[in-house]
Amino acid sequence: MNDFEYERDVRWSDVEKKVARRAFDLALQRECTTIAAEVRKLSAQDSNPMVVWGIHDYLSEQRRMVDRKYDYRYSVLINLFGRLVAEKWLSLDDLAGLRDEKIERIERSATFYHNQYPSPGHAPGGAPENRPRS
Amino acid sequence: MNDFEYERDVRWSDVEKKVARRAFDLALQRECTTIAAEVRKLSAQDSNPMVVWGIHDYLSEQRRMVDRKYDYRYSVLINLFGRLVAEKWLSLDDLAGLRDEKIERIERSATFYHNQYPSPGHAPGGAPENRPRS
Repeated sequence: MNDFEYERDVRWSDVEKKVARRAFDLALQRECTTIAAEVRKLSAQDSNPMVVWGIHDYLSEQRRMVDRKYDYRYSVLINLFGRLVAEKWLSLDDLAGLRDEKIERIERSATFYHNQYPSPGHAPGGAPENRPRS
Repeated sequence: MNDFEYERDVRWSDVEKKVARRAFDLALQRECTTIAAEVRKLSAQDSNPMVVWGIHDYLSEQRRMVDRKYDYRYSVLINLFGRLVAEKWLSLDDLAGLRDEKIERIERSATFYHNQYPSPGHAPGGAPENRPRS
Protein backbone atom coordinates (compact mmCIF):
# COMPACT_ATOMS: atom_id res chain seq x y z
CA MET A 1 0.00 0.00 0.00
CA ASN A 2 1.54 3.32 -0.99
CA ASP A 3 1.36 6.44 1.19
CA PHE A 4 -1.55 7.87 -0.74
CA GLU A 5 -3.62 4.69 -0.44
CA TYR A 6 -2.64 4.35 3.19
CA GLU A 7 -3.71 7.86 4.05
CA ARG A 8 -6.97 7.53 2.15
CA ASP A 9 -7.91 4.28 3.88
CA VAL A 10 -6.35 4.74 7.30
CA ARG A 11 -8.61 4.25 10.29
CA TRP A 12 -8.53 6.45 13.36
CA SER A 13 -9.68 5.12 16.71
CA ASP A 14 -11.63 7.36 19.06
CA VAL A 15 -8.54 7.85 21.22
CA GLU A 16 -6.47 8.74 18.15
CA LYS A 17 -9.11 11.21 16.98
CA LYS A 18 -8.82 13.01 20.31
CA VAL A 19 -5.02 13.08 20.09
CA ALA A 20 -5.21 14.33 16.50
CA ARG A 21 -7.71 17.06 17.32
CA ARG A 22 -5.65 18.27 20.26
CA ALA A 23 -2.43 18.31 18.21
CA PHE A 24 -4.15 20.10 15.33
CA ASP A 25 -5.55 22.79 17.66
CA LEU A 26 -2.21 23.12 19.44
CA ALA A 27 -0.28 23.72 16.21
CA LEU A 28 -2.88 26.21 14.99
CA GLN A 29 -2.77 28.01 18.32
CA ARG A 30 1.05 28.17 18.20
CA GLU A 31 1.10 29.44 14.65
CA CYS A 32 -1.52 32.13 15.39
CA THR A 33 0.41 33.14 18.51
CA THR A 34 3.43 33.78 16.29
CA ILE A 35 1.32 35.78 13.84
CA ALA A 36 -0.18 37.81 16.70
CA ALA A 37 3.32 38.54 18.06
CA GLU A 38 4.40 39.69 14.62
CA VAL A 39 1.40 42.04 14.40
CA ARG A 40 2.26 43.53 17.81
CA LYS A 41 5.88 43.95 16.72
CA LEU A 42 4.95 45.58 13.40
CA SER A 43 2.45 47.95 14.99
CA ALA A 44 4.90 48.98 17.71
CA GLN A 45 8.03 49.49 15.65
CA ASP A 46 6.98 52.19 13.24
CA SER A 47 5.33 55.48 14.09
CA ASN A 48 4.15 55.94 10.51
CA PRO A 49 0.42 55.10 10.65
CA MET A 50 0.53 53.86 7.04
CA VAL A 51 2.23 50.75 8.44
CA VAL A 52 -1.31 49.43 9.08
CA TRP A 53 -1.58 48.55 5.38
CA GLY A 54 1.62 46.53 5.64
CA ILE A 55 0.05 44.71 8.59
CA HIS A 56 -3.08 44.12 6.52
CA ASP A 57 -1.02 42.65 3.66
CA TYR A 58 0.84 40.43 6.12
CA LEU A 59 -2.40 39.19 7.72
CA SER A 60 -4.05 38.56 4.33
CA GLU A 61 -1.12 36.38 3.34
CA GLN A 62 -1.05 34.52 6.67
CA ARG A 63 -4.78 33.93 6.59
CA ARG A 64 -4.63 32.42 3.11
CA MET A 65 -1.76 30.20 4.23
CA VAL A 66 -3.49 29.08 7.44
CA ASP A 67 -6.83 28.45 5.67
CA ARG A 68 -5.16 26.30 3.05
CA LYS A 69 -2.93 24.44 5.46
CA TYR A 70 -5.16 23.58 8.42
CA ASP A 71 -7.44 21.06 6.77
CA TYR A 72 -8.87 18.65 9.33
CA ARG A 73 -9.79 15.74 7.16
CA TYR A 74 -8.59 12.34 8.28
CA SER A 75 -7.64 11.54 4.68
CA VAL A 76 -4.93 14.25 4.68
CA LEU A 77 -4.02 14.41 8.37
CA ILE A 78 -0.87 12.26 8.24
CA ASN A 79 0.72 14.59 5.70
CA LEU A 80 -0.43 17.67 7.58
CA PHE A 81 1.14 16.37 10.79
CA GLY A 82 4.31 15.56 8.84
CA ARG A 83 4.46 19.11 7.60
CA LEU A 84 3.75 20.55 11.06
CA VAL A 85 6.53 18.42 12.55
CA ALA A 86 8.92 19.52 9.77
CA GLU A 87 8.00 23.14 10.43
CA LYS A 88 8.44 22.64 14.22
CA TRP A 89 4.88 23.60 15.08
CA LEU A 90 4.50 20.09 16.51
CA SER A 91 6.86 17.63 18.13
CA LEU A 92 6.38 13.89 18.04
CA ASP A 93 5.57 14.13 21.77
CA ASP A 94 2.50 16.16 20.85
CA LEU A 95 1.33 13.17 18.84
CA ALA A 96 1.83 10.58 21.59
CA GLY A 97 -1.19 8.28 21.60
CA LEU A 98 -1.21 7.62 17.86
CA ARG A 99 -0.32 4.12 16.77
CA ASP A 100 3.33 3.42 15.86
CA GLU A 101 2.43 2.89 12.23
CA LYS A 102 0.98 6.40 12.02
CA ILE A 103 3.93 7.95 13.82
CA GLU A 104 6.28 6.28 11.32
CA ARG A 105 4.25 7.63 8.39
CA ILE A 106 4.24 11.09 9.94
CA GLU A 107 8.01 10.97 10.43
CA ARG A 108 8.45 9.91 6.81
CA SER A 109 6.20 12.71 5.66
CA ALA A 110 8.14 15.17 7.87
CA THR A 111 11.43 14.04 6.32
CA PHE A 112 10.00 14.37 2.84
CA TYR A 113 8.68 17.83 3.65
CA HIS A 114 11.95 18.85 5.24
CA ASN A 115 13.85 17.76 2.12
CA GLN A 116 11.47 19.69 -0.09
CA TYR A 117 11.98 22.82 2.01
CA PRO A 118 15.43 22.39 3.58
CA SER A 119 15.51 25.91 5.01
CA PRO A 120 12.64 26.79 7.34
CA GLY A 121 12.61 30.21 5.69
CA HIS A 122 11.56 28.59 2.41
CA ALA A 123 8.67 26.66 3.83
CA PRO A 124 5.36 28.44 3.35
CA GLY A 125 4.92 28.35 7.07
CA GLY A 126 5.06 31.66 8.88
CA ALA A 127 7.79 33.37 10.83
CA PRO A 128 10.21 30.49 11.45
CA GLU A 129 12.42 32.37 13.86
CA ASN A 130 9.52 32.72 16.29
CA ARG A 131 8.31 29.16 16.17
CA PRO A 132 8.13 27.22 19.38
CA ARG A 133 10.91 24.68 19.48
CA SER A 134 9.96 21.48 21.19
CA MET B 1 -24.63 77.11 -11.19
CA ASN B 2 -25.55 74.13 -8.99
CA ASP B 3 -23.07 72.39 -6.68
CA PHE B 4 -22.44 69.63 -9.14
CA GLU B 5 -21.64 72.01 -11.98
CA TYR B 6 -19.59 74.18 -9.65
CA GLU B 7 -17.47 71.31 -8.47
CA ARG B 8 -16.96 69.97 -11.97
CA ASP B 9 -15.82 73.33 -13.32
CA VAL B 10 -14.10 74.82 -10.27
CA ARG B 11 -10.57 76.12 -10.78
CA TRP B 12 -7.81 75.61 -8.24
CA SER B 13 -4.89 78.03 -8.10
CA ASP B 14 -1.39 76.69 -7.42
CA VAL B 15 -1.58 77.96 -3.85
CA GLU B 16 -4.96 76.28 -3.35
CA LYS B 17 -3.65 73.03 -4.79
CA LYS B 18 -0.90 73.04 -2.15
CA VAL B 19 -3.41 73.76 0.64
CA ALA B 20 -5.69 71.02 -0.67
CA ARG B 21 -2.92 68.46 -0.91
CA ARG B 22 -1.70 69.23 2.60
CA ALA B 23 -5.22 69.01 4.06
CA PHE B 24 -5.90 65.76 2.19
CA ASP B 25 -2.69 64.19 3.48
CA LEU B 26 -3.34 65.48 6.99
CA ALA B 27 -6.81 63.94 7.17
CA LEU B 28 -5.55 60.65 5.76
CA GLN B 29 -2.70 60.64 8.26
CA ARG B 30 -5.13 61.30 11.14
CA GLU B 31 -7.53 58.61 10.05
CA CYS B 32 -4.74 56.04 9.66
CA THR B 33 -3.36 57.03 13.07
CA THR B 34 -6.75 56.17 14.57
CA ILE B 35 -6.82 52.85 12.71
CA ALA B 36 -3.27 52.05 13.89
CA ALA B 37 -4.25 52.85 17.49
CA GLU B 38 -7.25 50.54 17.19
CA VAL B 39 -5.00 47.75 15.90
CA ARG B 40 -2.65 48.20 18.85
CA LYS B 41 -5.60 48.18 21.24
CA LEU B 42 -7.14 45.06 19.70
CA SER B 43 -3.86 43.16 19.66
CA ALA B 44 -3.08 44.07 23.27
CA GLN B 45 -6.46 43.43 24.86
CA ASP B 46 -6.98 39.76 24.14
CA SER B 47 -4.57 36.94 24.81
CA ASN B 48 -6.42 34.64 22.41
CA PRO B 49 -4.19 34.57 19.30
CA MET B 50 -7.25 34.03 17.08
CA VAL B 51 -7.97 37.73 17.62
CA VAL B 52 -5.62 38.34 14.67
CA TRP B 53 -8.41 37.36 12.27
CA GLY B 54 -10.68 39.95 13.87
CA ILE B 55 -7.91 42.49 13.29
CA HIS B 56 -7.66 41.33 9.70
CA ASP B 57 -11.43 41.77 9.19
CA TYR B 58 -11.24 45.23 10.76
CA LEU B 59 -8.32 46.28 8.53
CA SER B 60 -9.98 44.91 5.38
CA GLU B 61 -13.05 47.01 6.10
CA GLN B 62 -11.02 50.13 6.92
CA ARG B 63 -8.91 49.74 3.81
CA ARG B 64 -11.95 49.50 1.55
CA MET B 65 -13.42 52.57 3.23
CA VAL B 66 -10.19 54.61 2.97
CA ASP B 67 -9.58 53.57 -0.65
CA ARG B 68 -13.09 54.62 -1.66
CA LYS B 69 -13.09 57.83 0.33
CA TYR B 70 -9.67 59.40 -0.31
CA ASP B 71 -10.09 60.29 -3.96
CA TYR B 72 -7.82 63.19 -4.89
CA ARG B 73 -9.57 64.52 -7.96
CA TYR B 74 -10.26 68.21 -8.06
CA SER B 75 -13.74 67.48 -9.43
CA VAL B 76 -14.78 65.78 -6.17
CA LEU B 77 -12.52 67.53 -3.65
CA ILE B 78 -15.06 70.05 -2.32
CA ASN B 79 -17.41 67.26 -1.29
CA LEU B 80 -14.59 65.19 0.16
CA PHE B 81 -13.45 68.12 2.30
CA GLY B 82 -17.06 68.68 3.36
CA ARG B 83 -17.27 65.09 4.49
CA LEU B 84 -13.90 65.26 6.27
CA VAL B 85 -15.00 68.40 8.11
CA ALA B 86 -18.32 66.75 9.07
CA GLU B 87 -16.41 63.72 10.35
CA LYS B 88 -13.96 65.96 12.26
CA TRP B 89 -10.89 64.71 10.44
CA LEU B 90 -10.37 68.29 9.25
CA SER B 91 -11.19 71.68 10.69
CA LEU B 92 -11.82 74.77 8.59
CA ASP B 93 -8.46 76.04 9.89
CA ASP B 94 -6.78 73.18 8.05
CA LEU B 95 -8.25 74.58 4.85
CA ALA B 96 -7.09 78.16 5.37
CA GLY B 97 -5.75 79.47 2.07
CA LEU B 98 -8.68 78.33 -0.05
CA ARG B 99 -10.86 81.06 -1.49
CA ASP B 100 -13.95 82.07 0.50
CA GLU B 101 -16.23 80.69 -2.16
CA LYS B 102 -14.70 77.22 -1.76
CA ILE B 103 -14.83 77.39 2.03
CA GLU B 104 -18.53 78.24 1.82
CA ARG B 105 -19.17 75.29 -0.49
CA ILE B 106 -17.21 73.02 1.82
CA GLU B 107 -19.21 74.21 4.83
CA ARG B 108 -22.45 73.61 2.95
CA SER B 109 -21.28 70.15 1.97
CA ALA B 110 -20.26 69.46 5.60
CA THR B 111 -23.71 70.51 6.83
CA PHE B 112 -25.36 68.32 4.22
CA TYR B 113 -23.15 65.39 5.17
CA HIS B 114 -23.74 65.98 8.86
CA ASN B 115 -27.51 65.97 8.30
CA GLN B 116 -27.27 62.76 6.30
CA TYR B 117 -25.29 61.11 9.11
CA PRO B 118 -26.36 62.97 12.26
CA SER B 119 -24.56 60.57 14.58
CA PRO B 120 -20.82 60.20 13.94
CA GLY B 121 -21.25 56.51 14.65
CA HIS B 122 -23.46 56.22 11.56
CA ALA B 123 -21.01 57.87 9.22
CA PRO B 124 -18.93 55.36 7.28
CA GLY B 125 -15.87 57.00 8.73
CA GLY B 126 -13.86 54.98 11.20
CA ALA B 127 -13.69 55.02 14.96
CA PRO B 128 -15.39 58.33 15.78
CA GLU B 129 -14.55 58.31 19.47
CA ASN B 130 -10.85 58.43 18.65
CA ARG B 131 -10.96 61.15 16.07
CA PRO B 132 -8.86 64.23 16.63
CA ARG B 133 -11.10 67.12 17.59
CA SER B 134 -9.94 70.42 16.23
